Amino acid sequence: MQTVEPRGRRIVLAHGGGGQLTDELLAGIIRPRVDNPILSEMDDSAVVSVPASRLAFTTDSYVVRPLEFPGGDIGRLAVCGTVNDLAVSGAEPIGISLSLILEEGLELERLERILDSVGRTAQEAGVQILTGDTKVVARSQADGIYINTAGIGIVRAAEPLSVRRIQPGDVVLLNGPIAEHGLAVMLSRETDLGFSTELVSDVAPLNGLLLPLVEQVGDGLLFMRDPTRGGLAGVLAELAERTRLRLVCDETKIPIRAETRYAAELLGLDPLEVANEGKVVVVVRPEAVDRTLKLLRQHPLGRQATVIGEFQDETDGICELVTRVGGRRIIQKPYGEQLPRIC
Amino acid sequence: MQTVEPRGRRIVLAHGGGGQLTDELLAGIIRPRVDNPILSEMDDSAVVSVPASRLAFTTDSYVVRPLEFPGGDIGRLAVCGTVNDLAVSGAEPIGISLSLILEEGLELERLERILDSVGRTAQEAGVQILTGDTKVVARSQADGIYINTAGIGIVRAAEPLSVRRIQPGDVVLLNGPIAEHGLAVMLSRETDLGFSTELVSDVAPLNGLLLPLVEQVGDGLLFMRDPTRGGLAGVLAELAERTRLRLVCDETKIPIRAETRYAAELLGLDPLEVANEGKVVVVVRPEAVDRTLKLLRQHPLGRQATVIGEFQDETDGICELVTRVGGRRIIQKPYGEQLPRIC
Repeated sequence: MQTVEPRGRRIVLAHGGGGQLTDELLAGIIRPRVDNPILSEMDDSAVVSVPASRLAFTTDSYVVRPLEFPGGDIGRLAVCGTVNDLAVSGAEPIGISLSLILEEGLELERLERILDSVGRTAQEAGVQILTGDTKVVARSQADGIYINTAGIGIVRAAEPLSVRRIQPGDVVLLNGPIAEHGLAVMLSRETDLGFSTELVSDVAPLNGLLLPLVEQVGDGLLFMRDPTRGGLAGVLAELAERTRLRLVCDETKIPIRAETRYAAELLGLDPLEVANEGKVVVVVRPEAVDRTLKLLRQHPLGRQATVIGEFQDETDGICELVTRVGGRRIIQKPYGEQLPRIC
Repeated sequence: MQTVEPRGRRIVLAHGGGGQLTDELLAGIIRPRVDNPILSEMDDSAVVSVPASRLAFTTDSYVVRPLEFPGGDIGRLAVCGTVNDLAVSGAEPIGISLSLILEEGLELERLERILDSVGRTAQEAGVQILTGDTKVVARSQADGIYINTAGIGIVRAAEPLSVRRIQPGDVVLLNGPIAEHGLAVMLSRETDLGFSTELVSDVAPLNGLLLPLVEQVGDGLLFMRDPTRGGLAGVLAELAERTRLRLVCDETKIPIRAETRYAAELLGLDPLEVANEGKVVVVVRPEAVDRTLKLLRQHPLGRQATVIGEFQDETDGICELVTRVGGRRIIQKPYGEQLPRIC
């Protein structure tokens, strides 16, 4: 007697053809997990009413491997990454798009888990999935699933957030411990390190943390950036370079968990260069520091918020780190790929 | 003596790391081809000012194979597809995003050609690339390059374009000959058919053709849709299904070039089910037909615009085709994958 695998247990090429099978995938698997009245119109574009405004628009593709890792998965990452790009621009997200590239053979159960995570995370962030797209490619032409999210939001910052407004004396804050996303993903790939860890990704939507800053810190809020690929080092080096000011940071002030530091040492990585997905660098005027710290610490994602550095009156565009032992080293933007496919 | 391949001739994983090499790729290869003042701010989100409006938002990922085909390439396709999704929603595009997933080993020269095409097509369509993202995956985890574009636009249609407004007597128009994109792509894969053809993809931005309809036809304009994956059959069957009206179309009225018909026969494909990338199905009130045809025919992409069908007073949701020989057949939405990776 022949056993037949139930039809539809895995993604097949025909799921991407734009025909009845595509409809079944959309109606049976995808839409129930991300639905809302705008998406359910199923037209070529979503239509939303917006007031006269400055509109923020962003996009990111996600290719993280493995698809599921301690603390998150590619679905949660795709929602948070785009929500966070809007949030650090001082914008309140209106909604996001969800575009899937599926590899033939992907288990539908896994797709369902990832889409459940997309739906849950969108709800957590308070954003709607407004529009989407699904393509299927043959085996060995993707790696399970790639997700693109684009996002639109309304800029709430009265004064544009821009490195151009940064002056000597302005202060750099960070909302919590670094390097957890990159290391959690990396360690989940290495099953034979003989090393067990509780390390989980920090992936989280930051709009709930950041919108109060935008609304209540006012003019004193100058710039925000989430240190993802390239890590904290990438953002700090870029801040120094773009402002052409010297930026001095204090290594002892940069929060990092002991187990994160241990994992980084084990893998030979500089935690400053490791990707975060729930962290934000905030630059404020000196007189706004207390207010900003208070607002950050009121939120679960900002409990460990702290001042990590200050812009100096020198115009060399260098970021200098005062190390734990009192030495000084220059922070540079990482050269290339430290951790491939981390987001 | 050893010959060394010049560094940077091909994409390497490190181009995706978010470090200096990523910057070099962006500054040297990508940005010069798609630049504009908003993109060059290089922040996490693009910011554009919009009036109070209904905003259209859409996304599509493109995985076409081969990357370059007669009449176009994946770059032109990615710009047109998203511009067209906005245009058929009655929206004037504000701008689009450009997100690249690059396979390690991709020749930079090819990437440059594709990005040149993105830039040219965006200019042709009058849209700006507002924001973007680049990821790199290892060999055999993609197929050269996948592109996602999302788009935002301002809805110019006073009355929402919707299948809900369609009534018996309303008329279906088409702007030109069908099935050229899918067949041109398909034939460019089949090098050993012993068949040479002048068939080229119809891929083109439709916003210049459609905006005048939106502005000048007014209330009589009911619905527009570009028949891409699933072809004309997909759109017509969906129109019948969603309106729950009978839609009768006349096969002799549907424009198709002789060589397209021949190629479809050769490949055993129904041209009605083959993807188009420069075609649009327009539904109007009977009294708006003349005005709409005139406007369409004034534009190079609408010279062959014609009436192809009409909604009847029967509520069976069936699309019926009166064939060339006077018979009748029911048009159904294609089941699955007729032509994989056509867009």
